[in-house]
Amino acid sequence: MMASPLKVGLAGLGTVGASVLRLIDRHREPLAARCGRPLEVVAVSARDRHKDRGVDLSRLRWFDDPRQLAVDPEIDVFVELIGGAGDPAKAAVEAALAAGKSVVTANKALLAAHGVALAERAERAGVALNFEAAAAGAIPIVKTLRESLAGNEVSRVYGILNGTCNYILTRMEREGLSFAECLKDAQRLGYAEADPSFDIEGHDTAQKLAILASLAFGIAPDPDAVYVEGIASITPEDLQAADQLGYRVKLLGVALKTAAGIEQRVHPTMVPKESAIAQVMGVTNAVAIDADAAHEITLAGPGAGGAATASAVLSDLADIARGERALPFGVSAKRLKRSEKLPMQRHEGGYYIRLMALDRPGTAATIARHLADEHISLESIVQRRPGTATHGGDDPASVAAPVPVILITYATTEDAVRRALAAVQAAGVVAGTPQVIRIEKT
Amino acid sequence: MMASPLKVGLAGLGTVGASVLRLIDRHREPLAARCGRPLEVVAVSARDRHKDRGVDLSRLRWFDDPRQLAVDPEIDVFVELIGGAGDPAKAAVEAALAAGKSVVTANKALLAAHGVALAERAERAGVALNFEAAAAGAIPIVKTLRESLAGNEVSRVYGILNGTCNYILTRMEREGLSFAECLKDAQRLGYAEADPSFDIEGHDTAQKLAILASLAFGIAPDPDAVYVEGIASITPEDLQAADQLGYRVKLLGVALKTAAGIEQRVHPTMVPKESAIAQVMGVTNAVAIDADAAHEITLAGPGAGGAATASAVLSDLADIARGERALPFGVSAKRLKRSEKLPMQRHEGGYYIRLMALDRPGTAATIARHLADEHISLESIVQRRPGTATHGGDDPASVAAPVPVILITYATTEDAVRRALAAVQAAGVVAGTPQVIRIEKT
Repeated sequence: MMASPLKVGLAGLGTVGASVLRLIDRHREPLAARCGRPLEVVAVSARDRHKDRGVDLSRLRWFDDPRQLAVDPEIDVFVELIGGAGDPAKAAVEAALAAGKSVVTANKALLAAHGVALAERAERAGVALNFEAAAAGAIPIVKTLRESLAGNEVSRVYGILNGTCNYILTRMEREGLSFAECLKDAQRLGYAEADPSFDIEGHDTAQKLAILASLAFGIAPDPDAVYVEGIASITPEDLQAADQLGYRVKLLGVALKTAAGIEQRVHPTMVPKESAIAQVMGVTNAVAIDADAAHEITLAGPGAGGAATASAVLSDLADIARGERALPFGVSAKRLKRSEKLPMQRHEGGYYIRLMALDRPGTAATIARHLADEHISLESIVQRRPGTATHGGDDPASVAAPVPVILITYATTEDAVRRALAAVQAAGVVAGTPQVIRIEKT
Repeated sequence: MMASPLKVGLAGLGTVGASVLRLIDRHREPLAARCGRPLEVVAVSARDRHKDRGVDLSRLRWFDDPRQLAVDPEIDVFVELIGGAGDPAKAAVEAALAAGKSVVTANKALLAAHGVALAERAERAGVALNFEAAAAGAIPIVKTLRESLAGNEVSRVYGILNGTCNYILTRMEREGLSFAECLKDAQRLGYAEADPSFDIEGHDTAQKLAILASLAFGIAPDPDAVYVEGIASITPEDLQAADQLGYRVKLLGVALKTAAGIEQRVHPTMVPKESAIAQVMGVTNAVAIDADAAHEITLAGPGAGGAATASAVLSDLADIARGERALPFGVSAKRLKRSEKLPMQRHEGGYYIRLMALDRPGTAATIARHLADEHISLESIVQRRPGTATHGGDDPASVAAPVPVILITYATTEDAVRRALAAVQAAGVVAGTPQVIRIEKT
């Protein structure tokens, strides 16, 4: 004998919503066997009722307004796939929780902006607010942090959380192409939006990181507490230099326990080529967790796409169908500490620095002196003269051309690096602005 | 206000048991916050009461007999870390379930042999039987297959499930050492048992694979349905040849949906060097899952060790403390289908073959003819004369020395490969027995 079905109302019928409908239909029997009861979508809401989505909606009740669907007496669970931090997504989720419905959402923007308030409402109502799909797509990172690592103290969580950026960096590295060329290709292939700034400037990664940091460290999710830097300044020359020095460049989100608090940052990052995270290519996402008992766990998989995201939505629905009511952020929302933005100047780590040194006597000594003044020690120095063959020849222009110098520092502070480079620039021995990429130990 | 504590009885105080005690003690507050109630170990059982384990047992009740601890009225959960498929572990777990206690166990042998019967008992009693620690240590693979992929149809699960074997293969590859030398080192460092046969012959991997295959495919766990081959026959020459051809050799457990049923096998396997699984070095474990919606998920982390295994035990305890009662194998034990051992002769895939060809006219033609007779196509052929410099010189012995020939086949059947190699051997053109390693697509 099987229990009564879990009745689902689904708002938002984009690629993810349509995939959820298809998966529930395709896997009806095994889902019922795994959940102890059938999952049944009874009503949907979207903007355009007449658009062809390749799924049969004829037996489902239709709501023009997701807020009305959210409080419909027939549904047990409201699935929010509308997106956006504001209304109608926010109002609909609030209405569902107020009506005592469990909620499943893939909406990282909503959680990053209003996660604590929504979790408090869910806890008061004694219902679930599940969001496996909000970070890293099909990768079960939310349940891993919230449940599987319950007996651990996490010291760091970091990962590749944006497939668009990783696709671009992978293409740049493999084919020596410029950022602009690879971005254009990503747009053509549908991996990047027409307005790509949210992805390539790191804000998408910051929202996801804020959610993961909340689960890992018991702090309120807050993207404003995340230092953010995008990938637009990375050049093929940086990727080649990284490769020669045993590194790859990835856009990482990193949340790290430090003596001063939880440091949260998103920026292009050098990672050792042999590390697990460096192997992650193309649109794939990956998250690594350092914890006291589990040591290091790495999870990799598709971070986006209709079916992969729907897989995470189904995971949340199955948990609710089986009666699980985990606290949304792992601990009561009231216990979440405020996220403080740590000043990036105090960040400690190794640095990759690429300078265009002017080719005149004393340049090397000047650079070395300013680094030494800030107590920065160098692990390696690479200087290559692109025009070696003609250097010192008849053409006076080639003599004056600046020479790229790559420096890898031992652990120092961001502050020291910035001061040293300001002094080097003020001394007039380099052309342009130095490129600086932080190195992450893995 | 906090709910009443979850009272734990723990049987088995080896490195894992002692780590569980330490973790519960060290993380008392956060565990209570995450579970909504404290976890409290109230009683323990082990063989030797007076052994120093570095943990304070003075406030815990002591049982000489784990079966008595299992039914103690004070405990809510029985944690079985005794090990072994038989008594006292089996009797104690049965007694706990009969007494209506939830059970957490790390005992792969017990689950592989009696998992279905124990799950039926747990389901009848309405209690949990959790075993995250039984496969791949700290990696949350049980919850991922059982819960996170509920909305997926899995087509393959494969992984590196034995740290001892992966450590040995990593050392052999990196340092060109023999299997025997690396095994000795692994024993010296505590990565291998005094009697290493259970690990190196693949039986440990087979037990874990049987558990993962059960969760992935809804079949009864049954190590007897797994084809098993160990790593003792692998030579440094194989690893060098693999490297040159773009592969690494790993001991994989593979469970795969085929038209004939679920194929389960453990054997040394060639995997492409750039695949995620090939990056896993040393004692680390990793599991990859191919599924229709989530596409491909890879999880990596420590597969053994006291703290890492204890992390998984704590995950199970936290789920029970929060009131989760997932079905042990994801679906009701009554629904699990019988595991059938598929004949390995029907396995389809690519093959690596290393022959020692006798250096005489017609050898190559004979080998090629017997392969063609079995419709085996070759992706690559590599022939190297180790003594090229002296070959054809004055020393008649060097002329007669057999020459290693490496063949990589396109997809064919095991049957065809075996018949072709039998014919090649019968033709007297090779010395010794050909080495055969299956290639896995990743």
